Amino acid sequence: MPQLGLLHGRAWAVLFGQLRRPPGAVCIRAVHSHSQGQKYFQVAEAALATQLKPHQEKSNFIIKTPKGTRDLSPQQMVVREKILDMVVSCFKRHGAKGLDTPAFELKEMLTEKYGEDSGLIYDLKDQGGELLSLRYDLTVPFARYLAMNKVKKMKRYHVGKVWRRESPTIAQGRYREFCQCDFDIAGQFDPMIPDAECLKIVCEILSGLQLGDFLIKVNDRRILDGIFAVCGVPESKFHAICSSVDKLDKMSWKDVRHEMVAKKGLAAEVADRIGDYVQCHGGVSLVKQMFQDPRLSQNKQALEGLGDLKLLFEYLTLFGIAEKISFDLSLARGLDYYTGVIYEAVLLQTPAHAEEELLNVGSVAAGGRYDGLVGMFDPKGHNVPCVGLSIGVERIFSIVEQRMKTFGEKIRTTETQVFVATPQKNFLQERLKLIAELWDAGIKAELMYKNNPKLLTQLHYCENMGIPLVVIIGEQELKEGVIKLRSVASREEVAITRENLVAEIQKRLSES
Amino acid sequence: MPQLGLLHGRAWAVLFGQLRRPPGAVCIRAVHSHSQGQKYFQVAEAALATQLKPHQEKSNFIIKTPKGTRDLSPQQMVVREKILDMVVSCFKRHGAKGLDTPAFELKEMLTEKYGEDSGLIYDLKDQGGELLSLRYDLTVPFARYLAMNKVKKMKRYHVGKVWRRESPTIAQGRYREFCQCDFDIAGQFDPMIPDAECLKIVCEILSGLQLGDFLIKVNDRRILDGIFAVCGVPESKFHAICSSVDKLDKMSWKDVRHEMVAKKGLAAEVADRIGDYVQCHGGVSLVKQMFQDPRLSQNKQALEGLGDLKLLFEYLTLFGIAEKISFDLSLARGLDYYTGVIYEAVLLQTPAHAEEELLNVGSVAAGGRYDGLVGMFDPKGHNVPCVGLSIGVERIFSIVEQRMKTFGEKIRTTETQVFVATPQKNFLQERLKLIAELWDAGIKAELMYKNNPKLLTQLHYCENMGIPLVVIIGEQELKEGVIKLRSVASREEVAITRENLVAEIQKRLSES
Repeated sequence: MPQLGLLHGRAWAVLFGQLRRPPGAVCIRAVHSHSQGQKYFQVAEAALATQLKPHQEKSNFIIKTPKGTRDLSPQQMVVREKILDMVVSCFKRHGAKGLDTPAFELKEMLTEKYGEDSGLIYDLKDQGGELLSLRYDLTVPFARYLAMNKVKKMKRYHVGKVWRRESPTIAQGRYREFCQCDFDIAGQFDPMIPDAECLKIVCEILSGLQLGDFLIKVNDRRILDGIFAVCGVPESKFHAICSSVDKLDKMSWKDVRHEMVAKKGLAAEVADRIGDYVQCHGGVSLVKQMFQDPRLSQNKQALEGLGDLKLLFEYLTLFGIAEKISFDLSLARGLDYYTGVIYEAVLLQTPAHAEEELLNVGSVAAGGRYDGLVGMFDPKGHNVPCVGLSIGVERIFSIVEQRMKTFGEKIRTTETQVFVATPQKNFLQERLKLIAELWDAGIKAELMYKNNPKLLTQLHYCENMGIPLVVIIGEQELKEGVIKLRSVASREEVAITRENLVAEIQKRLSES
Repeated sequence: MPQLGLLHGRAWAVLFGQLRRPPGAVCIRAVHSHSQGQKYFQVAEAALATQLKPHQEKSNFIIKTPKGTRDLSPQQMVVREKILDMVVSCFKRHGAKGLDTPAFELKEMLTEKYGEDSGLIYDLKDQGGELLSLRYDLTVPFARYLAMNKVKKMKRYHVGKVWRRESPTIAQGRYREFCQCDFDIAGQFDPMIPDAECLKIVCEILSGLQLGDFLIKVNDRRILDGIFAVCGVPESKFHAICSSVDKLDKMSWKDVRHEMVAKKGLAAEVADRIGDYVQCHGGVSLVKQMFQDPRLSQNKQALEGLGDLKLLFEYLTLFGIAEKISFDLSLARGLDYYTGVIYEAVLLQTPAHAEEELLNVGSVAAGGRYDGLVGMFDPKGHNVPCVGLSIGVERIFSIVEQRMKTFGEKIRTTETQVFVATPQKNFLQERLKLIAELWDAGIKAELMYKNNPKLLTQLHYCENMGIPLVVIIGEQELKEGVIKLRSVASREEVAITRENLVAEIQKRLSES
């Protein structure tokens, strides 16, 4: 980012011609007794004194953004806008409404919702009043909203920032401030229909963004709990063992087993029994196989989970996406609030794209069913069953940015259609009148903020910024009542009468 | 908001038919040994126990959003999206690039930038690490960005939330969390050209949003300082007196004078001399009059300010907006960082609209020149002159929402184009296959998440939600290879062959 910003600044400086003045000097403009403001620099002593004060005081501080955060440059903003538009239009295609919640919540609203991750919540300073925390995800605020307003059914999307005090590993695209794009369906419905739609949405978005091949791992919290029960894990250790299993995407079974036995005090034979299950993955046939499993088929919770997964696969087949889904018994998901089906989409790295191998992308979407969360907020414990998904847009942003860099794609950071230029000195008034006409006609237009810019500088700026059209006005044109319209790409110029200019520009823009 | 949310929830409940179960009961779905999931409710004792725990614990807490904040309902989100789109498209029309900065900054970055308002900054808790504060506006982060990346020229817009610990007076539409829309031009240019463009942008946005008549008050910090100097205010009291003058839009001169004399220790005759100036307002003729003022014309700073204003009026005349501008010597603006021209747009309440009188709207846009702010961040004190504006979108949102309420305008909160319905039992599979086809063709479609919904319920939902088209599939249609397409408005139905359905829907949607 700093590099991009720097480049960007340099480009402007080169284009506009940078003015220099002595360090610490303050620019005070002279009185413009003549209307065409001549300007000069003047070191005003009083102003200089106030200027130097902050300078001296800050000699020790480094100018930066907070740890784990960053600015988004105009180039990055363009990429983001395109991706977010695509994600939101998919959410709208599925009938979702927009919703927004505050950046912070009462601290007690977030307490006991995230399990082991709670230590990563940002708290606000107690400045007298309520104890507040920055939101950690968009799911808990959504559940709070439902309970607070007694909403029993809602399909909503929410795009917003969340904050987590994680050790930032910026190379992997993980930040302490990041954007989430959530879609959730709340309400009591017939089983697995909303759940299947969530998986369909993940498929539509990942296909639509052309991120390459992907796979959605699916599991169910009740199946995991059933496995732990039939393998002999004491109920008090379910959470701890679940979070060990969750590490199987980054650690080998050998290491996870070691953690279970050495750190979490599980008997070795119990761990081995778990290992037999959680190393399985497959399609709907694995669901059927687990139904026949002599131990698991004795567990009520596991059977409920398996029954739902069977139905889910049926719906996914009707949606034409069953081949993208893998029943993966190692999938556990970190967050505490899931109660049923859980899923996580991962990009598959085809070794053909050698240049992309360095970028470890991992999971790009995840979600699941959380039927108990709303009840935790409701004064009477009334529940609203929910299922939802979150698109890992930050990782998607990194992938797309990386790809654009690899292919050397140039991004336009402005949408300017027309530049108003002049070859003449003292033509500012004419340029201002002209550009106001264009703006008032809804045309995106720019000019140089100088009284007497050089024509070449103006034309170079258009080429560099990708502005397609230039309107040129000079003394000759003014006399003849015409304007020159120049195509930047072809360098062709035509004379157009002043009154036809807007129509001609609109015609050209609609054709391109 | 709560009311809207409630209504919203009720609407859904009525439409979908709400399922009831005993309080505290948890819905556990049965094993679906048959694929078409039959469901029943079951009170699972273990689950019930964990359910009751949070319920008992939270008996003392009230579920709410933090003081001065609120959720934004789907209805509000629709209004916001439209207004923000309009504002951003104006910023883009003027060649601005997008930029985003983190929600929080290092605390020291915000220190000494806001004057008296600094006490309203939200600090984050010290959790080991850097001391952080939530951003108070978008201007200081922009200046920090410019200095950090050594950007010397940039035209950027930024739409984002900011946070201020103000006493919330929610009736006036003031919140502790609110959205700002900023446009700024940084760089050393010929005088008053970017400043004039900023005022043009304010006019375009306020006209475009059709908020009624408005006026932009303009002044210059150097003129105010000049007035204080020639009236005999000691330099140490400039800031305090400036903030008293700033209150003239809400308080009478008599009360402001009293504050100056009684609270800020100004001599009565000095206050009276100030009063002669700050009660003046007018057009460019007032600028000329001030040039002739025997005292003010002796002050260098004031003359510089007056010279710039004269030039500004010239450019505003070329832009065709001079009649919207009032040179108002009482305009002071609270923030410390302004150094030159300042402005504030206010809506003019025409007494004709009696029903809108209760809504006190005040200022809806403001800004000015801040040539010293970037230098406060730069290690060597190098400055980048800046001028910018901020649109008070929160107030605009309230006005538009109020107006829609007054005129009883109904807002669609979803964009769904087609609803997939059936009159038949056990037709879920066909509906799922059909809706997937529509989604894959980019058509916005919904269905009911029930195995056997009633046709009337489905059609009522479409009418209530404003969905224009319904696709109906039943046994008869399946046999004949057709689908019924129904227009919700006219209630006309036509049979269409299955393979022509998508094309026919797209044709109808493009026509409407």
